[in-house]
Amino acid sequence: MAFKYEITARSKRSKARVGRIHTAHGIINTPAFMPIGTMGSVKTMTPRDLEEIGAEIILSNTYHLLLRPGPDLIKEAGGLHGFMHWDKPILTDSGGFQVFSLAHMRKVTDDGVMFTSHLDGVKHFLTPESVLEIQTKFGSDIMMPLDECVAYPCDKQEALNALIRTTAWAKRSQAWVRENVERGTLNIGTLYGINQGSTYKDLRIRSAHEIAALDFPGYAIGGLSVGEPQPELFDMLNAVTDILPDKAPRHLLGVGYAPDILGAVKLGADTFDCVIPTRLARHGSFLTYEGKTSIRLNQFERDFTPIDPECDCYACRNFTKAYIRHLFWAREISAMHLLTIHNLRFFVRMLAKVRAEITAGEF
Amino acid sequence: MAFKYEITARSKRSKARVGRIHTAHGIINTPAFMPIGTMGSVKTMTPRDLEEIGAEIILSNTYHLLLRPGPDLIKEAGGLHGFMHWDKPILTDSGGFQVFSLAHMRKVTDDGVMFTSHLDGVKHFLTPESVLEIQTKFGSDIMMPLDECVAYPCDKQEALNALIRTTAWAKRSQAWVRENVERGTLNIGTLYGINQGSTYKDLRIRSAHEIAALDFPGYAIGGLSVGEPQPELFDMLNAVTDILPDKAPRHLLGVGYAPDILGAVKLGADTFDCVIPTRLARHGSFLTYEGKTSIRLNQFERDFTPIDPECDCYACRNFTKAYIRHLFWAREISAMHLLTIHNLRFFVRMLAKVRAEITAGEF
Repeated sequence: MAFKYEITARSKRSKARVGRIHTAHGIINTPAFMPIGTMGSVKTMTPRDLEEIGAEIILSNTYHLLLRPGPDLIKEAGGLHGFMHWDKPILTDSGGFQVFSLAHMRKVTDDGVMFTSHLDGVKHFLTPESVLEIQTKFGSDIMMPLDECVAYPCDKQEALNALIRTTAWAKRSQAWVRENVERGTLNIGTLYGINQGSTYKDLRIRSAHEIAALDFPGYAIGGLSVGEPQPELFDMLNAVTDILPDKAPRHLLGVGYAPDILGAVKLGADTFDCVIPTRLARHGSFLTYEGKTSIRLNQFERDFTPIDPECDCYACRNFTKAYIRHLFWAREISAMHLLTIHNLRFFVRMLAKVRAEITAGEF
Repeated sequence: MAFKYEITARSKRSKARVGRIHTAHGIINTPAFMPIGTMGSVKTMTPRDLEEIGAEIILSNTYHLLLRPGPDLIKEAGGLHGFMHWDKPILTDSGGFQVFSLAHMRKVTDDGVMFTSHLDGVKHFLTPESVLEIQTKFGSDIMMPLDECVAYPCDKQEALNALIRTTAWAKRSQAWVRENVERGTLNIGTLYGINQGSTYKDLRIRSAHEIAALDFPGYAIGGLSVGEPQPELFDMLNAVTDILPDKAPRHLLGVGYAPDILGAVKLGADTFDCVIPTRLARHGSFLTYEGKTSIRLNQFERDFTPIDPECDCYACRNFTKAYIRHLFWAREISAMHLLTIHNLRFFVRMLAKVRAEITAGEF
C-alpha cells in the first residue's frame, strides 16, 4: 500500500493544515474537495472534464454500485478505475449511510445490516467484512468501514449503541484487512476509521478515543451535516480533531456547503465530499463566494457576462449567463453540464485558495 | 459574401461529387452531415465536443430560436455564433417545416403563415421577408427561404398549391436579399432556393425548373423523408438533381438514415441534416454500418469492448459497452453524451469515407 500522508504547512491561527495524501493512483493535495460519482460517473461529467476542473480524487457510493452493476462486474472490468476510465484516486464509502437513509426495512444486528434494495426489493446483508470485500473488488484507494449512522436528532442511548457498534465493526474491519493482506489478497485499499456519536460531545470524544486507539492511517468523521445547526457541527468536529492523531488525514463525510467547509478546515478537517455542487448545478444554480444563485432569474436574460469573470472554467471562459439561462429554460442537458463544470471548479479553486492562504499563514 | 462552392472530384459511376463550400466561418467538405442544434445547442454536446468529432457546420432551427430566446436577444449576443460560442458555419432553416409540424392552428395565406406557439400560445406571423430578417439577426451563414412543406401522403392539388407558393416566396426572398444588400444590411447569409413538390415527379421537376431559373448559390430539397418509402425519395431526388445546376451545392433537408444518405449522395446530394444520430443516442442506441443497436441489451452487460473498435471517438477510445450500458440503466446523463459523441462521429466518418471513395473513383 503506497498510502502516505504528509503535512507541508500549518496555520498559526487555527488547526488548519496543508498536506499531501499519496495513494497508488496519485497525490491528493489537502484540504481537498471530492466530487461524487455515485453510480460510477460524476453526473454530466466525463473523466477528462474532471481532470480539467482539477479533481484529484472522486468519491463513489458502495451502496449504489453494489445494487447496480454489482461488484463482480466492476472487478471484471478492471475495478472502478478501469470501468469508469478514471485513473486518479477513488474513495468509496461503506454503504452504511445509504442503507440508513435510502433502503427499506433495514434491520441492524451486531452482525451487520439487512436491507431491501430501493430498486428492486431484493434483500441484501452487509457486514463489516462484506463491505470491504466489495470495496476491494472496486479497487478503491480509500475504503470506509461499515458504521452505524444515526439520524438527527437522535436519542442519546441510541447514539451510544451506534457508537459501540461502530467501534466493534471498526475492529472487525481492521482484522479483515490484516487477514487479507497476510493471505495475499490484491488491491486492498487504505482503510480509514470512522468517528460517530451524533451531536453528543462526550460520545464524539469517546468514539474518537476508541477509533484513534486502533491506529488507522486516516479517519473519517461521519454522521454530521445531517440536519444539525452549524455551531453543533463545528463543536463536534473541534472536539474530535483534538483527539484524532495529527499525523493522519481527516475526512469530513458529506459536508459540502462552502461556509461549513471553510470553518471545518480551520478545525483540522482535510478532505470533503458532497453532492451539493453537482446537484445544485442540475437544478440550475451556480456557486460563487456570495452563495448560490439561480441561473433561471429574469435578471440574467440579457446578461452577456460569464457566471464569474474571475473563474477559469470552460463554462466561464466561453459562455454567458444569458446563454446558460436560455439552455436551462430550453431544458438542454448542456446547461446542467456547464453549471456542473463551474460549481466543481469553484470548489476546487476555493480549496486551492485555502491551501495557499494556510501556506502563507493567512488562514 | 464569401460563399463559394467548388467541385474537386466526381464519381464516374454516379452523380456523386466531392466539393468544398466556402463560407465566412470556414469550409465545409462535402458530402457532409450537419448535426442539429435546435435550441442553439447540439443536445449534450459542447462546441469543443463538436469540433472534436469533426463537425464543420451545424444546423439550427429558426422556429425554436424565434420563440425562445428570440432573434433580438441572439443579435445582441453577437449572433448565434457568439451566443453559443460556435465559430464554424451555421445553416438555419426557415421555420416553415416546424410551423407545419409543431405549431397549432396555423393559417397559410399567400402573404405568409400565422401560427400559435407550441410553448405559450402566443400568435406569430411569418413571412418570407420576416424569416430572413430573423436569420440575419442570427447571423446564419446559410439561410433558407420560407417554403410550404406538405405532409405525406398529400393530395396533388394541395402539393401544387404549395409548390406555387414556395416559388412565389422564393422570389420575394431573393428580392429581400437584393434590397438589403443594396441598403447595406450587415451579415446577410447565403440564401438557398428550396425545391418542393411532394412525391409527384412532374411537380418536383416543375419546382426544380422554377427555382433553378432564379439562380440561387445553393439549393435545398425539402419535403422528403416525411414518411415516403425510400424508392420514392430516391426517385424524386434523382429527377431534381438532373435539373438543379451542377455548379451549386444541394442540401437534402431532414434526411438522416445512413442508407438514405448513401443513396442520396449517389444521386447528387451534397449535404444532410437530421436529428437521428443525436435522438437515437438519447434513447440509448448506437450506430454502426450494421444499423442501430440498443445499448440496453443484456448481451452487453459484460461486454468490455468499445461500441466500435474501429471508431476513433472519445467514447470508443475510452469506454466499454458494459460501462455505457450501466450508465444508461442508471439514468446517467453521461450515457446520452457518450452515445451522442459516437453517433455523430459515426456520421462524420461515414461521409469522410464517402468523399475518399468518390475521389478514388470507387463510389
